Amino acid sequence: MNPTLVEVLRGDALESSHAGALAVVDADGAVVAALGDISRPVFPRSAVKALQALPLVESGAAVRLRLNDDELALACASHNGEPEHVRTAAGMLAKAGVDAGVLECGVHWPYLDTVSRALAARGDVPTALNNNCSGKHAGFVCLACALMGWNDSGLDLRQYVKGYVSPEHPVMREVTEALQSTTGCDLSRAPRGTDGCSIPTYAVPLRQLALAFARLGTGIGLREGQAHAAKRLREAVARSPFMVAGSARFDTRVMERLGERVFCKVGAEGVYCAALPERGLGVAIKIDDGNNARAAEVVMAAVIEALVALDDAEAVFMRGFSDVTLKNWNGIEVGALRASGDLRTSLKG
Amino acid sequence: MNPTLVEVLRGDALESSHAGALAVVDADGAVVAALGDISRPVFPRSAVKALQALPLVESGAAVRLRLNDDELALACASHNGEPEHVRTAAGMLAKAGVDAGVLECGVHWPYLDTVSRALAARGDVPTALNNNCSGKHAGFVCLACALMGWNDSGLDLRQYVKGYVSPEHPVMREVTEALQSTTGCDLSRAPRGTDGCSIPTYAVPLRQLALAFARLGTGIGLREGQAHAAKRLREAVARSPFMVAGSARFDTRVMERLGERVFCKVGAEGVYCAALPERGLGVAIKIDDGNNARAAEVVMAAVIEALVALDDAEAVFMRGFSDVTLKNWNGIEVGALRASGDLRTSLKG
Repeated sequence: MNPTLVEVLRGDALESSHAGALAVVDADGAVVAALGDISRPVFPRSAVKALQALPLVESGAAVRLRLNDDELALACASHNGEPEHVRTAAGMLAKAGVDAGVLECGVHWPYLDTVSRALAARGDVPTALNNNCSGKHAGFVCLACALMGWNDSGLDLRQYVKGYVSPEHPVMREVTEALQSTTGCDLSRAPRGTDGCSIPTYAVPLRQLALAFARLGTGIGLREGQAHAAKRLREAVARSPFMVAGSARFDTRVMERLGERVFCKVGAEGVYCAALPERGLGVAIKIDDGNNARAAEVVMAAVIEALVALDDAEAVFMRGFSDVTLKNWNGIEVGALRASGDLRTSLKG
Repeated sequence: MNPTLVEVLRGDALESSHAGALAVVDADGAVVAALGDISRPVFPRSAVKALQALPLVESGAAVRLRLNDDELALACASHNGEPEHVRTAAGMLAKAGVDAGVLECGVHWPYLDTVSRALAARGDVPTALNNNCSGKHAGFVCLACALMGWNDSGLDLRQYVKGYVSPEHPVMREVTEALQSTTGCDLSRAPRGTDGCSIPTYAVPLRQLALAFARLGTGIGLREGQAHAAKRLREAVARSPFMVAGSARFDTRVMERLGERVFCKVGAEGVYCAALPERGLGVAIKIDDGNNARAAEVVMAAVIEALVALDDAEAVFMRGFSDVTLKNWNGIEVGALRASGDLRTSLKG
């Protein structure tokens, strides 16, 4: 059983709790902090979108299609499906000479209630561009342009990308290779599942996920083209943090504030990964019960507080995510969310 | 640490899991099945709304105000805030001679996305009547009519009910007495918190919560007026299961199908309670991490499958809640939710 990482209080009493595991690793693979089982394979889900976007840059597609910071950040995003995200994804596809008809990610209403209600209030329904993964998928389509050898006919590209979500498609083979080389795992032997957006997801131990993010943040242990691509993606996200998530979202708010000192990325089912480039560290978190918003985020905030050099105002800002007062519908304080003592202690190590 | 009650699979691999505790008790307090810690006090939240509604009937207010099945079911509800729920809550207040201005539950957007978006699409915003607790609060206001001695002036009632959410108000003292007498707990010594709708919530061990529901389902161990009130509320909910929750909700769907054989009620933070009147049993569940929709519901479905006499079609219907295929946005099967082996085994005993 993994230890409790986050506690939920009502009044002074413990109401609920979230158990999980955490690995903090340097680019040589040395474990700097750990809690719980960091060897069990975990599906990283969307937390590894930046790793999956490496071939988009390494292939030369990003330069040749003149993808800008917004677009590269969106390729790494689990976004809110806000109008800016939708427009940017459409723009990426236009640069490749196609439209949203090629996307194979499926359609869902934006996760953030306010965004979803705003869409409904306009009398609209969502399209694949609103899917939180539409930027990643648009990036796959741009990568496909390079893989097919820059045939200038959009029609051929539409043929070429058909079924790109399949593990055997050249696009997905390239994406999987990036995951394999950065994590150092043989993914042909890893448990494989299908992600929400239909691409494969491979289960990888937290220790290896943290290593991949230490490499992403430093370039150490990556081949030259990958190291360059990692730097370009981190830079793009630091300049366009709105694109990687959106209004009121943890990743956007934290990176707006801390810039290139943190690259953090949420995944479904309570997974969170981060690179802390200044410290040369990678971080990987899994909440056993799959809770993101009130568990994985609290853990990530506590990690950033403990491991990133922050001034006083920044420390107060981050504490607002790791030690949260809960209010009810009348604005009355009813409880708190907080990082557990075990977690705080393990990070002091 | 409590055992795993629910497993979440992606492909063939365990992706996430939910730990928790379960008590099944008869009306004499004998434990029929148990898993995990059933002695730790747990905030029951909205799972005990039927117990909190007992004084509304026992006081004579329900008869004198001619509250119908819909209205009594709504007094026990955590509803979706759908138009029918809103109209019914407004009707209860009108019978008491007041309007929604007296409600102290606060305002929130309906929890069910489709309901919330439909409200937004109409250009509306929610009021206190949309609050999932508005029926319970309207019931408190109706109870107040009896407690103040049926003064016929609505103005006096508006004065009388001010601050009714406070633990010291006569209304809340009556409601707390009902919880205390049915659970057999001295609530003056229990951990106290403030609920989402601002009334007090008292932490009670699962064993005592299950006992209260065995009593609610059988009348055994209740004073005569309470036993009559329990029967009336169960009958009302069985006749109007839509009112207790709403479209696509577990409680509504299960009670529409199984009628008076099950009275089940969800509470926030992974709490679920039920009375199984034919079996003379009460059930109380707490998921440690607070997850309702995919954890507490799965456990409750497994309990009903194991303990209620079901025909084949009903058993298949319930299995659809305890062994669930998960699909992604493209409708592709990606995994499953299922009751754990430990849980199934404990229910066989």
